Order: sequence, then C-alpha cells, then structure tokens
Amino acid sequence: MSVQQPSSQQAPSRPRTEKLSDAVVDTNPYSRLMALQRMGIVKNYEHIRSCTVAVVGMGGVGSVAAEMLTRCGIGRLLMYDYDKVELANMNRLFFRPEHCGMTKTDAAAVTLAQINPDVALEPFTMNITTLKGFDAFKASLTHTDTGKSRVDLVLACVDNYEARITINQVCLELGQIWMESGVSEDAVSGHIQVIIPGDTACFECVPPLVVASGIDERTLKREGVCAASLPTTMGIVAGLLVQNVLKHLLGFGQVTRYLGYASLQDYFPTMAIRPNPECINPLCRQSQAAFKVKAEQEAALQAASAPEEAAPAKADLHEANEWGIEVVADEPSGPAASRAAAALPQGLEYSMPVASMDASNLNRDAVESNDDKLEDLMAQLNAMSK
Amino acid sequence: MSVQQPSSQQAPSRPRTEKLSDAVVDTNPYSRLMALQRMGIVKNYEHIRSCTVAVVGMGGVGSVAAEMLTRCGIGRLLMYDYDKVELANMNRLFFRPEHCGMTKTDAAAVTLAQINPDVALEPFTMNITTLKGFDAFKASLTHTDTGKSRVDLVLACVDNYEARITINQVCLELGQIWMESGVSEDAVSGHIQVIIPGDTACFECVPPLVVASGIDERTLKREGVCAASLPTTMGIVAGLLVQNVLKHLLGFGQVTRYLGYASLQDYFPTMAIRPNPECINPLCRQSQAAFKVKAEQEAALQAASAPEEAAPAKADLHEANEWGIEVVADEPSGPAASRAAAALPQGLEYSMPVASMDASNLNRDAVESNDDKLEDLMAQLNAMSK
Repeated sequence: MSVQQPSSQQAPSRPRTEKLSDAVVDTNPYSRLMALQRMGIVKNYEHIRSCTVAVVGMGGVGSVAAEMLTRCGIGRLLMYDYDKVELANMNRLFFRPEHCGMTKTDAAAVTLAQINPDVALEPFTMNITTLKGFDAFKASLTHTDTGKSRVDLVLACVDNYEARITINQVCLELGQIWMESGVSEDAVSGHIQVIIPGDTACFECVPPLVVASGIDERTLKREGVCAASLPTTMGIVAGLLVQNVLKHLLGFGQVTRYLGYASLQDYFPTMAIRPNPECINPLCRQSQAAFKVKAEQEAALQAASAPEEAAPAKADLHEANEWGIEVVADEPSGPAASRAAAALPQGLEYSMPVASMDASNLNRDAVESNDDKLEDLMAQLNAMSK
Repeated sequence: MSVQQPSSQQAPSRPRTEKLSDAVVDTNPYSRLMALQRMGIVKNYEHIRSCTVAVVGMGGVGSVAAEMLTRCGIGRLLMYDYDKVELANMNRLFFRPEHCGMTKTDAAAVTLAQINPDVALEPFTMNITTLKGFDAFKASLTHTDTGKSRVDLVLACVDNYEARITINQVCLELGQIWMESGVSEDAVSGHIQVIIPGDTACFECVPPLVVASGIDERTLKREGVCAASLPTTMGIVAGLLVQNVLKHLLGFGQVTRYLGYASLQDYFPTMAIRPNPECINPLCRQSQAAFKVKAEQEAALQAASAPEEAAPAKADLHEANEWGIEVVADEPSGPAASRAAAALPQGLEYSMPVASMDASNLNRDAVESNDDKLEDLMAQLNAMSK
C-alpha cells in the first residue's frame, strides 16, 4: 500500500479562482453553475467550495463521478484505487490510452488538476480491503485533531462486496453518510443508494439490492469471468450519483434513497430501506438507537415550540411525491429481509439469496489463510465488540 | 461555413484493430464490450463497426455522446458544430482547458482519434441553420451515388429550435431515423426522443415536449440570459441517448420512443407520440401515407403466411411493459395538440404554448431581413411544395 500526494506539479491550465463569479463571459468557468443560483434552483452555489467528497474506486463510475465533481468546483476531492489503467478500460469514459500503466489515482489527479486547478485533490493509491488498507483508509478520512470525519460524503464506486463492507464499517465507525453505487456484471443495469448511519439500512442490514439482471455478481467474480461494461450505463450511474451528491450538499430537490436503472426497459425504481433492528453489525444497532433518541428529542423540542401541530417523528425525504410515481414501494418496517423482500418494487431483487442475508457466513466466521484479508479484520472487530 | 477534414494526423495511440477480439487480456480495448455477446445481451457486437452515426451539436450532450460512441467502437462518426471551445464550457464533461480557442469539432476529432483510432471521424465545422449550411448538412449525409442517406442515425444534440427544425426537415427529406435530445435551461431536467419519419410524430407534428421546468426556453434565449448547465444532467442525457442508439443499432432491449428525466424528483416519464395526420409539414404527411401503405402490405403478408393468427397492424416497441410501469400514458390518437396535451403523463409539458402549435407562425410566414436564415429556406421549401 502506498499513499501518494498529487504528483502532477505541472503548470495549471488557468489561474486559480478566488471567488466564484456569475459574470456571463466566455472566460468564466463557473458562469453556467452560478446561473443555477440566479434561476432559483440553488440558494448558495459557492457552498460547494467548502465541501469535501471521497470517491472510493476510480473505475468506470468513480472516475466519471470525480470528473463531474471537479467540473462543478467541489472544494476537496479524495480519490482511492489500487489499480493501474489498462487498454481494457478504454470502453468506459475518462481514462485515455496515454494513461496506460499509470495508477488510476495518479492519472486522475493529473487530468483533474488540469481541468480545474481550484479543486484540492488527494489521491490515495491503496487497497482498502486489506488490514493495513482499512486503517489507512479510516485515518485518511479522519481529522487528526477531533478524531471525527473530515469529509462531507463518501462515494462507493467499487466493484466488489468486500470493499463495500469495508466502506460500510468505516462509515459506521465515523458516523459518516455515504452513497453506494453499482453496475451489473452484464452492464445493462445499475443503482445508487444513500446510507445514513442509524437512519437508513446499512450495507449489512439487508442483502444488497440490485435491479434484476439474472446474474449473480459473486459467482461471476469467483469464476474469474470477465464482466461486460458500457460507457453509457456507467456514465448514467455516475451522473445519477453526483446529481444526488449535489442535491445533498447544496440542498435542492429530493435526495433519492435508492434509485435503480434497468436500461433494457428504461425502468427506474426508487425506494427507501429502513434499518434492520436485528442488523448483525453492532455499530449499526448502536447508530439506530442513537438516531432514535435524537429524533425523539427533536420531536419533543418541536412539539414544545409548536404544541398545536403534531410534529412528525422523523423527516423522510421521500414523503413528498409530487409526480405521483407509482413504483415507490412502501418501506419495509419489519426486522428482517423476508419482510423487506415482500416490499420490493417490481424488477428489484437482492444480489444474494435472502436466506443467506446473515453476512456472518460470508465475512465473519470464514477463516482464510491470507493474513491481510477483511475476514480477519472482521473477526478482530467482532472480538473487540463482544 | 467551412468543412474540415480530421486535422490531427498525430501518431495513433495504439495500432488499429482488424477484427474485434473477446480475449480477456488487459491490452484488449474491446474485451468488456465483446462480453456483452458472451452474456447473451447482444447477438453480434461487431455489427457496430459497420454503423455510421451523425452527432449534430458538440456541446455538453453531443460531445459526451460522441465519446461514448467512439469508446464503443462505432464504425464512422460524423460531428457537426460551428462553435469554439471556451472556459465557460468547462462545467460540462469532455472538453479540457487546453482545447480553448479550437473549434469543438476539431478538439473532438483530436481527442477521439487518440481514444480510439478504429473509428472513422468526420468533423464538419458548420452552422446547419443557414441556407448554405442546410445544403451542406444534407449533402454530407447523402450517398453521392444513390442520393440516399449514408448514415444509420442522426443525433440532435443542439440547444435551439431552429437547428432541430433543420434536422427534422433534412431527415424527412432523406427518410432518415433520428433521435432528439435536450436539457432544460435550468439544467435540472432533460429528454430524449426517437423520430421515425411516418411512424412517429415528427418535430413539427406536435410542439416539442419537455419535462416541466417552469421556464420557457425561447423567452430565455431571446433575452440573452445565460442558461445554467450541469455535467450530471448532460452526462445522463448523453448516456440515455447513446444507450438508446446501441439498443437500436445492435437490436437488444426496448428502444424508448420518449424518455424524460426530471432530476429534482428522479422522475423518468416515458411515452410514444404518434404522428399528426394534419402535420403542417407536407413531407411528414407523405411519409405517414407511405408508412401506412407499407404497414398494411406487411400485415397482409403476415396474415397470408399465418392466417390463424391476427397480425398486428403495426409493431409498437412500447407494447411490452414487463415492469408494469405506470407512468406510460396512452398515445394520443387524434389529429391535434389539444388531444395530445390531454394525454401527457404527469410532469410533462410542451415547451411552447399548445395554442401556437401551428409552427407556421414561427417559421414559415415570418419574413426577416437576413437572407441566410431558416425562415427563408422554409418559405422556399413551402413554395416548392405548393
């Protein structure tokens, strides 16, 4: 594992911007973004410059998400990957043949610094699923002074289960909101999902949801089959992900908790997934309890200040549904996957059998010979939390 | 107007590919695309190399659409724009600061040739809405021998009404299928639409449909207000557009006739728009009559070969609806916009008042002093068709 600082100290493509301008001139890279403010979509666009986002995985989704955030003028961007650019990546956006052989993080840092020198870039060339990687990943997200998270959002743009479980664990430990994304192995469907510790299901509460594609990701990965990919599906998923990021950071529109994309039928299911009170992850159960206390305190405060109105127990971003969308399923209220499964919108399914939803079979009790694997880390964490 | 041939004769980034390989090796830029075939999504991926697509408008949607098609290995790509790259374009994907001052077509040709030397690129630096531009645009799409279209698809990625009407007219004259795309002036919604002469509504049959955004495009344009734009919305619309192109060219999934995207609510309305028998464009009415005759002949042939089964009068790509999507409205069957308006799905509206749907007010009878304008061309065409 190695942690790199931005390696490209080449001359910037333009002078850095002190303050964003809304001047409508050809030389202003922010005129079309500041127009969002003039049109009433966004209250204070410049707030984006004080935001930090971590993109984990710089593949076909992560690299495009990083480029979109850079072009939007995000304040600080952390990027994680351990892989190198190959010609086999050229069927997706962002990387170019001249990047082949460079690490993805390095190639991205060079390209993005050139596109927008106003963004502070922090590339981390590391595999987060090793023991050392887990520690380094968590440390990179943490304020050294406060011990709290120093980022506003973590975006999971990875292609495997272990990395997602790692991100889930680190974000639970830091109380950090994150957004998950994924594309099916047959390249024709994908999804994004918002995970708010204690408020929504964590990645271990219920099996990961995918838009039905009829292919089991883990089987394919295990057999070493080459997955298909398309620049269209990955670009769309990156776009939906960053659109949700912008809505969350800048406070406009409705942040969508789960949004699927099935390209063959152009079907876009949405739903919210409540946390599982019996989640196998003890930190998730703690977060749920803390969130419940906080929500009750807020409700009590609201009731005290405005006693004539019944205060809602919990703000739900999905309550408003101006368009009358029919495919939003009711949220499962029960404590387990069986109930959740019954409430899934048409076309959505779990990426693993519901019966094996107890991820302990996969990640906790498994003993493997590789010292550096997540399973060992999980075992250690389990031992500590007993 | 000037027509340029690819100006970048720099060394290619890799040797050209004779035949697409499905070998799973890091050096194969097509392995992840050929995997679509092995997974049963696509029957013959290599067919894409015999396809030609024209992208009109190399802005935030067109440039990304061109890049996606290039990375997918499209056979031949025609690109049209008259504008130059400016720093004000940097909030959308594709162009980089070092391109500033170059024409968009030239910058795209250099970048795309580097990304995939297998694609035959034809950049056309021209304004298609002038009289000369119209002729040159049509000529560039036409086989000199046969007088018929030499492209499989035309993609409209333009930002104004006049350019869309020009594309509509040229495609009616050539009997050419095209796909329209657009993003709202407030940057938070967009759409794609398939136009098949005689089978679907042409761009003059009914007023252009947009996802409701509360802003009148023409008013904004006229007042010279700077439109907002986002790399997310434009990247998503480009992705949805090219996904539809791939489905159409490679014969998989369901080609969506109209797909809207309203980002604030993540709402994606779909619908089909039948042609207007009273369309003001006489070529459209001719195309409708020809299509009807052809459909009746095919139905008769089918009935003769399989008399026990009732042959459908017309294949409708939207009849299958496996997911039970609720927001697909019934198609308006009547001859006018008033009826069509009543059938619009929630959240969709016309970009111009339905009362002024007769575009003759806007484009035919108007007399302006500029000799080079579309209005004059339209008047000439009207005179010829009388």
